[in-house]
Amino acid sequence: MKKNMIIGQSGGPTAVINSSLAGAIEYALQSENVDNVYGMINGIEGLMEENIISLTAMFRSLPHELNRLKHSPAMFLGSCRYKLSDNEEEYKRLFELLDYYEIGYFIYIGGNDSMDTVQKMTAYAEKIGHDLRVVGIPKTIDNDLVGIDHSPGFGSAAKYIATCVREVAYDTSIYSIKSVHIIEAMGRNAGWLTAASVLARQDNMPAPHLVYLPEIPFSVEQFVSDVKKKLEEYNSVIVVVSEGIRDKDGRYISAAQSTEADLFGHERLSGAGAYLKSVIEEEIGCKVRALEPSVLQRSAGHIASLTDVNEAFNLGSVAVRAAVEENLTGVFSTLTRTSNKPYSVAYGFEDVSTVANKENTVPVSWISEEGNDVTEEMVTYLRPLIRGTVQTPFRGGLPDYVDIRHLDVRKQRYRD
Amino acid sequence: MKKNMIIGQSGGPTAVINSSLAGAIEYALQSENVDNVYGMINGIEGLMEENIISLTAMFRSLPHELNRLKHSPAMFLGSCRYKLSDNEEEYKRLFELLDYYEIGYFIYIGGNDSMDTVQKMTAYAEKIGHDLRVVGIPKTIDNDLVGIDHSPGFGSAAKYIATCVREVAYDTSIYSIKSVHIIEAMGRNAGWLTAASVLARQDNMPAPHLVYLPEIPFSVEQFVSDVKKKLEEYNSVIVVVSEGIRDKDGRYISAAQSTEADLFGHERLSGAGAYLKSVIEEEIGCKVRALEPSVLQRSAGHIASLTDVNEAFNLGSVAVRAAVEENLTGVFSTLTRTSNKPYSVAYGFEDVSTVANKENTVPVSWISEEGNDVTEEMVTYLRPLIRGTVQTPFRGGLPDYVDIRHLDVRKQRYRD
Repeated sequence: MKKNMIIGQSGGPTAVINSSLAGAIEYALQSENVDNVYGMINGIEGLMEENIISLTAMFRSLPHELNRLKHSPAMFLGSCRYKLSDNEEEYKRLFELLDYYEIGYFIYIGGNDSMDTVQKMTAYAEKIGHDLRVVGIPKTIDNDLVGIDHSPGFGSAAKYIATCVREVAYDTSIYSIKSVHIIEAMGRNAGWLTAASVLARQDNMPAPHLVYLPEIPFSVEQFVSDVKKKLEEYNSVIVVVSEGIRDKDGRYISAAQSTEADLFGHERLSGAGAYLKSVIEEEIGCKVRALEPSVLQRSAGHIASLTDVNEAFNLGSVAVRAAVEENLTGVFSTLTRTSNKPYSVAYGFEDVSTVANKENTVPVSWISEEGNDVTEEMVTYLRPLIRGTVQTPFRGGLPDYVDIRHLDVRKQRYRD
Repeated sequence: MKKNMIIGQSGGPTAVINSSLAGAIEYALQSENVDNVYGMINGIEGLMEENIISLTAMFRSLPHELNRLKHSPAMFLGSCRYKLSDNEEEYKRLFELLDYYEIGYFIYIGGNDSMDTVQKMTAYAEKIGHDLRVVGIPKTIDNDLVGIDHSPGFGSAAKYIATCVREVAYDTSIYSIKSVHIIEAMGRNAGWLTAASVLARQDNMPAPHLVYLPEIPFSVEQFVSDVKKKLEEYNSVIVVVSEGIRDKDGRYISAAQSTEADLFGHERLSGAGAYLKSVIEEEIGCKVRALEPSVLQRSAGHIASLTDVNEAFNLGSVAVRAAVEENLTGVFSTLTRTSNKPYSVAYGFEDVSTVANKENTVPVSWISEEGNDVTEEMVTYLRPLIRGTVQTPFRGGLPDYVDIRHLDVRKQRYRD
């Protein structure tokens, strides 16, 4: 018997989470087991408020629109950061709605927090003997998911950061004066993105010269000494730091300054980069800039990794297949690296309890002894993930992403 | 009689200043009037220190390298910010060197400050009856040069800023909470780049919602009121401000805060964006982020405008032709827009005194009456400049720019 499917997205955006959505929609539209495909606007919150749209109507006869979706960053369905409570009333309401819309397949794209939703929906369905199939599709730029070789979204953010470093290295090469550039990468607890900046290195340009991951304690003194040493060798020194670097007592390097600033009535934390800039100014006194690519590193669809886009798409298809063909529930689609040369992956499933609420940080053995670089093992792991150039559709000189006007319309109810 | 040519670059980098260099080299290598083509490393300073390289040797039989140069950002020859003095000794030394190297053509790529060098070198040559031909090639991301429809380098920076705004707009669309993003664009006195952000607008997404140029006084009160009004209509409001916005008394908006902060021992100025972020936090209290693309907007070769790359290349060729075929001196190559639909330009020359040390700011009539937007006339002017997608060479997933190892080698003398 055909059933309807509902898909949601949750957590922070990436450049390829819509590729996963496109993969899921494409598979669902072709499946004999799926009738209508709905999208919840703003994740599980949208479902609770019956803020849903028909993805079947939007994409069934528009394959080029599906391709545009595949190449658009951020989240076509909007997001939420809602965590399901333990309140049974909440689940009753959700399952009433699922029954009302005759939904047999619940697909949720997100990170480790979102997989908690998959886990809880699965558990409640089992508890009440409901045959809802609940399947997750992983994503995160931080690459901190367990149970997967690398997270979709990470490769594109990594490519963005490495491209930034390379372009800043070219920019700063033009003067023969000493300078330091500090680039702050996302990843509060996991240093994968920071590490990925080393892919910018080439024979003729060793930038970034120093990288600092949050997995090991950060010493401001050691940092100043490291920078001084590099300045002896190079005119221009480029440093990449994780936003989450902490001192040996676990205090954020950014927070160290903010505590002081708070006394003066300043409201927000300064980032690690901005703080270290002031340190270099005081301790070394050369020209120094702090750059914070901020949300651009997760939304730059125009320079996404083709490898990442395609893997995200496939993980979307695989998840839907798990639900509709293999009758699985409480799993997420995953990939294993089967070979590095040539690079290849195999797709499969994992129990969602593997990933939910867990964090995969960088092994300390992949960080150099000095704590300011990564090992060759890390580089080998990273290198294939940024490969391949996407053919982003352009119009009028700018990336022509999918229309998301529907996100502005509140409460698109299907009933009164 | 064949003579040698020397080429230099000066001022701040752009994504296409190397395209101009490539155009100049290509023309010079084919010219029957040119023998060797030299490059001065770090502009006129490099010439004075005899820090020069042979561009003939580097590119003569490597057309693919010349193409790579055409697509590489920043400055292959390095830069300087040196302003020639009125000291005759300096000129004597320079002309001795030019004679030693048998240089008959002096080509200088730069902005309005660099054109001062072209003007002074021309004047001295005339004064001593030297037949050196001195020709400038314009560049600047700020678009503040006079005597040219638009500056090479501007179109690519404009495309970068508009792309940023669009991608941030997608990123921030995903939550249904109120938020403000403030993006700070370069251009201290000229608001062209800030204005170009409006190219990001499309039917389904009106970001940026507000833009503030430095040509008219900035009122913090009006800004808060503008943002509040937009927040009534939109969940997510995106604002682009020039780094150079000033209040009615001419004080930088960024500096206003820094004076206060200095009392607390903080050392550096906050940017306009960071300051306005704190204003929104205090006055409105919603989620707010400040983004400063900083040097990335001038060095992002991977998303350069093809129109810009090609025009910069042509301006390079035209300048060399002016010197070697038309025997001109004291001019710079320029372009005039001959039609907007279809867009086309005509190349020519202008006397360098037209451009040197002058600044072309945005006409106030191209700014909306409310002071927070630009007119349709501005949009019509801007639209063609960002068109066309470059085929940046990629390797291993990253832009494969030209080798600039030579910039690290000090004093590449051709004699002892």
